[in-house]
Amino acid sequence: MIKVGIVGGTGYTGVELLRILAAHPEVELAAITSRKEDGLPVADMFPSLRGHVSLAFSAPEKAKLTECDVVFFATPHGVAMAQAAELLAAGVKVIDLAADFRLKDTAEFEKWYGMPHSCPDLLREAVYGLPEVNREAIKQARLIGLPGCYPTSMQLGFAPLLAQGKPLVNESALIADCKSGVSGAGRKGEISSLLAEASDNFKAYGVKGHRHLPETVQGLQAIAGRKVGLTFVPHLVPMIRGIHSTLYATILPEARDTDFQALYENHFKGERFVDVMPAGSHPETRSVRASNMLRIAVHRPGGGDLLVILVVEDNLVKGAAGQGVQCMNILFGLDEKTGLAHVPVLP
Amino acid sequence: MIKVGIVGGTGYTGVELLRILAAHPEVELAAITSRKEDGLPVADMFPSLRGHVSLAFSAPEKAKLTECDVVFFATPHGVAMAQAAELLAAGVKVIDLAADFRLKDTAEFEKWYGMPHSCPDLLREAVYGLPEVNREAIKQARLIGLPGCYPTSMQLGFAPLLAQGKPLVNESALIADCKSGVSGAGRKGEISSLLAEASDNFKAYGVKGHRHLPETVQGLQAIAGRKVGLTFVPHLVPMIRGIHSTLYATILPEARDTDFQALYENHFKGERFVDVMPAGSHPETRSVRASNMLRIAVHRPGGGDLLVILVVEDNLVKGAAGQGVQCMNILFGLDEKTGLAHVPVLP
Amino acid sequence: MIKVGIVGGTGYTGVELLRILAAHPEVELAAITSRKEDGLPVADMFPSLRGHVSLAFSAPEKAKLTECDVVFFATPHGVAMAQAAELLAAGVKVIDLAADFRLKDTAEFEKWYGMPHSCPDLLREAVYGLPEVNREAIKQARLIGLPGCYPTSMQLGFAPLLAQGKPLVNESALIADCKSGVSGAGRKGEISSLLAEASDNFKAYGVKGHRHLPETVQGLQAIAGRKVGLTFVPHLVPMIRGIHSTLYATILPEARDTDFQALYENHFKGERFVDVMPAGSHPETRSVRASNMLRIAVHRPGGGDLLVILVVEDNLVKGAAGQGVQCMNILFGLDEKTGLAHVPVLP
Amino acid sequence: MIKVGIVGGTGYTGVELLRILAAHPEVELAAITSRKEDGLPVADMFPSLRGHVSLAFSAPEKAKLTECDVVFFATPHGVAMAQAAELLAAGVKVIDLAADFRLKDTAEFEKWYGMPHSCPDLLREAVYGLPEVNREAIKQARLIGLPGCYPTSMQLGFAPLLAQGKPLVNESALIADCKSGVSGAGRKGEISSLLAEASDNFKAYGVKGHRHLPETVQGLQAIAGRKVGLTFVPHLVPMIRGIHSTLYATILPEARDTDFQALYENHFKGERFVDVMPAGSHPETRSVRASNMLRIAVHRPGGGDLLVILVVEDNLVKGAAGQGVQCMNILFGLDEKTGLAHVPVLP
Repeated sequence: MIKVGIVGGTGYTGVELLRILAAHPEVELAAITSRKEDGLPVADMFPSLRGHVSLAFSAPEKAKLTECDVVFFATPHGVAMAQAAELLAAGVKVIDLAADFRLKDTAEFEKWYGMPHSCPDLLREAVYGLPEVNREAIKQARLIGLPGCYPTSMQLGFAPLLAQGKPLVNESALIADCKSGVSGAGRKGEISSLLAEASDNFKAYGVKGHRHLPETVQGLQAIAGRKVGLTFVPHLVPMIRGIHSTLYATILPEARDTDFQALYENHFKGERFVDVMPAGSHPETRSVRASNMLRIAVHRPGGGDLLVILVVEDNLVKGAAGQGVQCMNILFGLDEKTGLAHVPVLP
Repeated sequence: MIKVGIVGGTGYTGVELLRILAAHPEVELAAITSRKEDGLPVADMFPSLRGHVSLAFSAPEKAKLTECDVVFFATPHGVAMAQAAELLAAGVKVIDLAADFRLKDTAEFEKWYGMPHSCPDLLREAVYGLPEVNREAIKQARLIGLPGCYPTSMQLGFAPLLAQGKPLVNESALIADCKSGVSGAGRKGEISSLLAEASDNFKAYGVKGHRHLPETVQGLQAIAGRKVGLTFVPHLVPMIRGIHSTLYATILPEARDTDFQALYENHFKGERFVDVMPAGSHPETRSVRASNMLRIAVHRPGGGDLLVILVVEDNLVKGAAGQGVQCMNILFGLDEKTGLAHVPVLP
Repeated sequence: MIKVGIVGGTGYTGVELLRILAAHPEVELAAITSRKEDGLPVADMFPSLRGHVSLAFSAPEKAKLTECDVVFFATPHGVAMAQAAELLAAGVKVIDLAADFRLKDTAEFEKWYGMPHSCPDLLREAVYGLPEVNREAIKQARLIGLPGCYPTSMQLGFAPLLAQGKPLVNESALIADCKSGVSGAGRKGEISSLLAEASDNFKAYGVKGHRHLPETVQGLQAIAGRKVGLTFVPHLVPMIRGIHSTLYATILPEARDTDFQALYENHFKGERFVDVMPAGSHPETRSVRASNMLRIAVHRPGGGDLLVILVVEDNLVKGAAGQGVQCMNILFGLDEKTGLAHVPVLP
Repeated sequence: MIKVGIVGGTGYTGVELLRILAAHPEVELAAITSRKEDGLPVADMFPSLRGHVSLAFSAPEKAKLTECDVVFFATPHGVAMAQAAELLAAGVKVIDLAADFRLKDTAEFEKWYGMPHSCPDLLREAVYGLPEVNREAIKQARLIGLPGCYPTSMQLGFAPLLAQGKPLVNESALIADCKSGVSGAGRKGEISSLLAEASDNFKAYGVKGHRHLPETVQGLQAIAGRKVGLTFVPHLVPMIRGIHSTLYATILPEARDTDFQALYENHFKGERFVDVMPAGSHPETRSVRASNMLRIAVHRPGGGDLLVILVVEDNLVKGAAGQGVQCMNILFGLDEKTGLAHVPVLP
């Protein structure tokens, strides 16, 4: 059994980790920390876990995290980078669900997250936890920075186009029109996330710039091995879970004869958590609700030069906690699907 | 034109007052205060008001509230009682949407609101602003304490039963099973009101005790002229606006032959904002959405001894701002419906 | 492996059965019928099942249902009673999710379902599939009529009160104020179930009479061994899944000293799918979302004579498909929890 | 008073027309037809209209539509073109909310709507009812084909870019990523519009082709006087009302110095129902809920070559019934805002 610790378990990615790990057959939940909730049984805060999780929150200094095999950070940005070194020194693997180990450029990190990066050395070592792109590196990693929710969908959605030897689309003018459920904003008392504000409503936000833009560009460039230009427009959907990314790319004249459906199917062949749907499909976010699956459909409206790629994922699973467990499975040599075989909940 | 001031216009009852008053033909919006938002145009916070409200928020000390004809308090409990005396002394009428002038018993007030009452004298003078019960007193009032949202629906729903010379139902064992949309919790950053918490969910709350219980009992007893016992169970509905109260009362043996449908229709004859629906109806909250109407249906399932009364209202209109404007119309001798003729928004 | 057939798999209870059975370790999905969708892969209709269910729908006459060990009917009322005899004769166990085998009185059946009952003999044999009440009978059954969604919550909620030797509450005047998500209305193109009608709205319905009333009274009387009177008022909640029943019962003078919390805890001791929460709790429907759990909280507001019992369940799981699988587990001697250990999905 | 008739008043555009016209100071509602609901008081179907509309539905042959001044068709496609000629002959103005008089090319009409066009002559005469583009023609019209809901937002969103003497953006590669509430699908019992299907979910649809594409291209080309290429991807949002269109256009090198904010503000100067918001704004659909306003924000992320235009409208008001009333006001020489001054309902 893998001894797992969780730092910061009171947010949505924390409770989702608990939902998944509580039923994971190879995991023993060893500790979950929260300074504020020290002593409170986890199931008192989240009654959905009654009968499944008997642990109580403990203050960080009481939790014997260094005795764990792996520790997940489901914390605000900045916490993991302060604590990772000590855990790594004790031989504990670290998986950060926040942004501390995503951006390789510390100047970019400081610009977008408003704090200096406290351990550039670890940042260099950290592996970006997107298994469908980075599986071999993850196998060897000690420290994993998990992708953001939007970046997961954008990178996997564009990957087959960019991963070819020569450009198929205008890589300097990609567009991602993304829509996310409200849980993406976290379990924080913000007025804009109130049901009375966000329900029966739709809006774009962060059009000027969003933290997930530099992360995604970095990832897309790593996939392409070339410079990539992206416009990213996030929107808020009145639903709890789910991201739907509508991606646009202009086909280059020399690539007009490409069979893009086949390209996508081949690219993701054998992947257990990426489902390239039949041509003409319109994936729905609920078709992956509460599961680690990501579904993609490839469209070329009117047979023209614009590709439209539709991508859906559950932002809390494939976009966060599930992807973390997928990485953990890889790290510890388990079948990647262990504990992640949930049938999506529909309706 | 009536010069109107609003103290505390950044919450839901505040913006609803603005929506109604901006289109009221006899009103001039003179001032709206918010210490925190001093100088901010109201329409910058609520873009729905662009083109309708040109005022900016002003700090309380800058707003010339004593020059108004009437001032509404759309503030947290405790604010109106601190400022009412000065306004009244200047000849300004005061309408409080919070609880400062609802409970006649100061001990009860302190128990439920956790603060001492600072002006018991004014409390004695204050008129409870439920026009269908209290119209004549409102006409003469200087200071009005508006009913809470739940209490409005419970009192109007039970009133015809209790207002008779002798009891028709077991008045010591009334039950009110009430359901409210989330806007009732206010425009505050509370986790329990997040879309990701309250949507696709249903729960009761405050079963042990809720502030609206003593207020409603006081009101029901005033209507009946007798002691009344009430159990009140509020629930949270994943919708923005609306209250649906399901009221239960056991018919006394001697009242079994009463025509309750006729009783209700007669009781509310001539009322412009109470609609007794045909027998067998199931009123929906959306049938009063964004309007000052309250609809009632009377049921006696299986012809038995239990009356089931269904009541719907928009908690922000008849349950708050609309009722406030209705009182203002009465205070200033206008037709009660002035500025309140909104057709409900459906769908 | 238990060979399972499903008749009528295109509705919500059908797809929920598939979600649960696809991951059940002791089940082999052998056939699923739909005349209209003959030949269509199930996962084409419900993409959530891609990768989990490879079966296609088949016309009833092609499906070899008599070779199954058990057949579930997730059909409209009237279908199971037409086909059960043939299956039972072939040694197949039958579990009906519709109402054909719920009401023991055929006259009542005809009154509420508008059709004559075609096999009163089987009706006499049929066992009511509520394990927490009827477990021993289920073990021996060939034919099970599963309870309706509302009746499950009402019966389990009232059971501890009624199952005592002498009455504790006024059993002639029970009240159930129930609230259900919209999936309870089925996957049918009815205007009243449209998002544009049912969302941001709340209403009661069927106050005059609802099919689940006679079923529940029959069940409560079987538990009590005495006559029971019930008023049942169902309401529609703008959410997908979940039932919240708020139950009211008046404590008899001689039972005022009863410790009702203890009574409930003792009654359900050892039950795996009934969770009596700590005193003072307010269970939320989302705390059981997509799981077979039912949670109960016992309240006595103000220490008075009125008991308020709060009950939540997922109407598609404990209220339908999950309870069916629970019965199947009992029928085949499996641990009752096999395939039913889902951690509820929150948020 | 203008005598108004409505053909087909049982759908969402019909009830929205009623909501607006019932409060219109210059209108007398003379007749509303529905063969199926002949004799039923309108307010029995839509209780929100109780006290506001006393008319009953009447069968078409009984309604004296030829005595009206104007008749609105809120019917399925194909109805208006069968009845318009008779009304026009009687001197009645006709406003069609369906698609019969939108597409000027009858072959296109037949392709997208699956029926031949029965009166090409009238089609030639019909004026496209988009006042901000076509006001002068509307003044003289007898017959108006109102724009679709999506096309209104796309045309007004792109209009300032295309209405210039020379191209500012790549007009052959416009993109419209549009999101609509579910009321856009109409008041029809379709499974995909059920709350249990569409709620807590997000999806694209019709990516291969949608009826609003040829209409929008026709309109954009009329504005530009040049050929225009558009990719249109509609999505379904789990909300009742509202459309949010996110429009993308690539700035031509020679137009890089254009002040696009100023261009939009100038273009719509004086328009009462188009609000160009301050630079950097993110309009929300709720900011126009239940009103005839359309709001636009202009973005140029990172100062690059891609313009992002955000447009919101209420699909039932500016996208249908409200625009119809706006056209009626123009037709009859009234102030355009008469009866359309609703303050949007927020929250």
